[in-house]
Amino acid sequence: MFDKKLPSNVQIREVCPRDGFQSQRDFIPTEEKIALVDAMAQTGISIMEVTSFVSPKAIPQMADASEVMEHFNRRWRGKVESIVLIPNLKGAERALAVGSDAVGFVVSASEAHNMANTRRSVRESMDELRSVASIKGDTALGVSVATSFECPFDGPVDPQAVVKIVEEALEIGVDSITLADTVGTCDPLMLTKTLTEVRSRFGEYPFFLHLHDTNGMAMVNTMAAMDLGFYRFDSAAGGLGGCPFAPGAAGNVATEDMVNFFERIGVSTGVRLDKVLEVAARMKEMGLAVNSHLSARCKK
Amino acid sequence: MFDKKLPSNVQIREVCPRDGFQSQRDFIPTEEKIALVDAMAQTGISIMEVTSFVSPKAIPQMADASEVMEHFNRRWRGKVESIVLIPNLKGAERALAVGSDAVGFVVSASEAHNMANTRRSVRESMDELRSVASIKGDTALGVSVATSFECPFDGPVDPQAVVKIVEEALEIGVDSITLADTVGTCDPLMLTKTLTEVRSRFGEYPFFLHLHDTNGMAMVNTMAAMDLGFYRFDSAAGGLGGCPFAPGAAGNVATEDMVNFFERIGVSTGVRLDKVLEVAARMKEMGLAVNSHLSARCKK
Repeated sequence: MFDKKLPSNVQIREVCPRDGFQSQRDFIPTEEKIALVDAMAQTGISIMEVTSFVSPKAIPQMADASEVMEHFNRRWRGKVESIVLIPNLKGAERALAVGSDAVGFVVSASEAHNMANTRRSVRESMDELRSVASIKGDTALGVSVATSFECPFDGPVDPQAVVKIVEEALEIGVDSITLADTVGTCDPLMLTKTLTEVRSRFGEYPFFLHLHDTNGMAMVNTMAAMDLGFYRFDSAAGGLGGCPFAPGAAGNVATEDMVNFFERIGVSTGVRLDKVLEVAARMKEMGLAVNSHLSARCKK
Repeated sequence: MFDKKLPSNVQIREVCPRDGFQSQRDFIPTEEKIALVDAMAQTGISIMEVTSFVSPKAIPQMADASEVMEHFNRRWRGKVESIVLIPNLKGAERALAVGSDAVGFVVSASEAHNMANTRRSVRESMDELRSVASIKGDTALGVSVATSFECPFDGPVDPQAVVKIVEEALEIGVDSITLADTVGTCDPLMLTKTLTEVRSRFGEYPFFLHLHDTNGMAMVNTMAAMDLGFYRFDSAAGGLGGCPFAPGAAGNVATEDMVNFFERIGVSTGVRLDKVLEVAARMKEMGLAVNSHLSARCKK
């Protein structure tokens, strides 16, 4: 397992302000969101998913997306790279009006999940992505391939479905691609199978990986991914995210757990663990559903 | 990472009735302990750490060790292999009077932890182990090397300290040896370093590994261990154990998480996941501090 050389450093993208906050039942007041975003920006993180421009009716938690993003631009633009999630062309227009380094579009590799998530076929989503690309101007465009490994409805996802979406996304001209283990049920064998296919087709393309710790396999999956040369990982401070209707249920892998893991095995992240733990503690005090190994750690 | 062939099967030792129960603040009535032991014995597990013969003053939870073990012998002897923990010669005498397939003695690789845990030097513990060996008769004798990787007081443990204890234990004639990540802070790099030393010195000796999921690294450590040919692992149903004074703090790696992990990567355990989940659900209902990924899983 450690026959191969580990990377000297990896990049962590902080997704808590979007994927984490979105899962919280109670509205987090805008000033508290901003305070947490500021605290996260001070951990040493180089890139952050700041918010999402979705329908406030669908996700009331994100109703203040513009205010959060305007604050971020004033304080952090040029220091921390930003990406905001957009579900469609309309969201893209709103996001572009406010401004961010990148907008991120989501499409699932599984038809069933894409339909459940967006009420569109994968084909329709790819057409929407093309429309977003046509209006984005200088803003970078990212695409996240949800259910890249396993779908909660259809089970294991054919690696060729992922390859197909990535091919078309690259043809459209996107600037970054994320492969997401949306439900967190992926195991290192399944991950290795799909990523090996992806590697053989797209060489050293610097994909992001978005892993969950649902079944306790986030670290072993990260290890398997690094073994194949992947070095960009999403995580959420406090492990927020996942399932808004089951407090304590596993969500995104926690930034503090990932940073600790990388530190222990000598892989640099540029992120300060103590600062991330402060953010997690603050979120806990605020009553957010913090769920990470390090935050639950025995104090004895 | 998956260049090497995974083992076709591994052995899981269920340690919940000892290491898990021991960490629970409130006394679990003997009949409930017995009911849980019965349920665990019905999961397909082949070996169980059933109880420990420690001072009831030090650990009141284990005051009914004899009754639990007598029940186990009546119902499960010959079907599920048993081991009971003994801290010293006196505990061994009590255990031998009741009878079990094996007695398990604990010594730490770190002097500081051994002193804190047993009020003895490592030398004194090894002498005590020798005394236990002299009275054990036909009962098998196991030894668990606590803090085999890292000590909460002294930090990283020199692999040679582990090698030295294992050498003497083998010379004394023990029948099984467990290497324990007692605090759960071991990472796959540290694990690989120590286990590589151990492998080079003791060849294919079938060590047990006792891993915790404190920092979310139980699976990646398990993976690293399998990569070096290790195939016997401790785990506790419900993830019970660890720290009695911090509810929810990470304890032993949960049997359900381990079984799920092995199943997903095609490694057979002989243990039925559904049955283990039933045990965990039952323990939850009883108010025990269940703490596993699968038991917290989003029901949505």
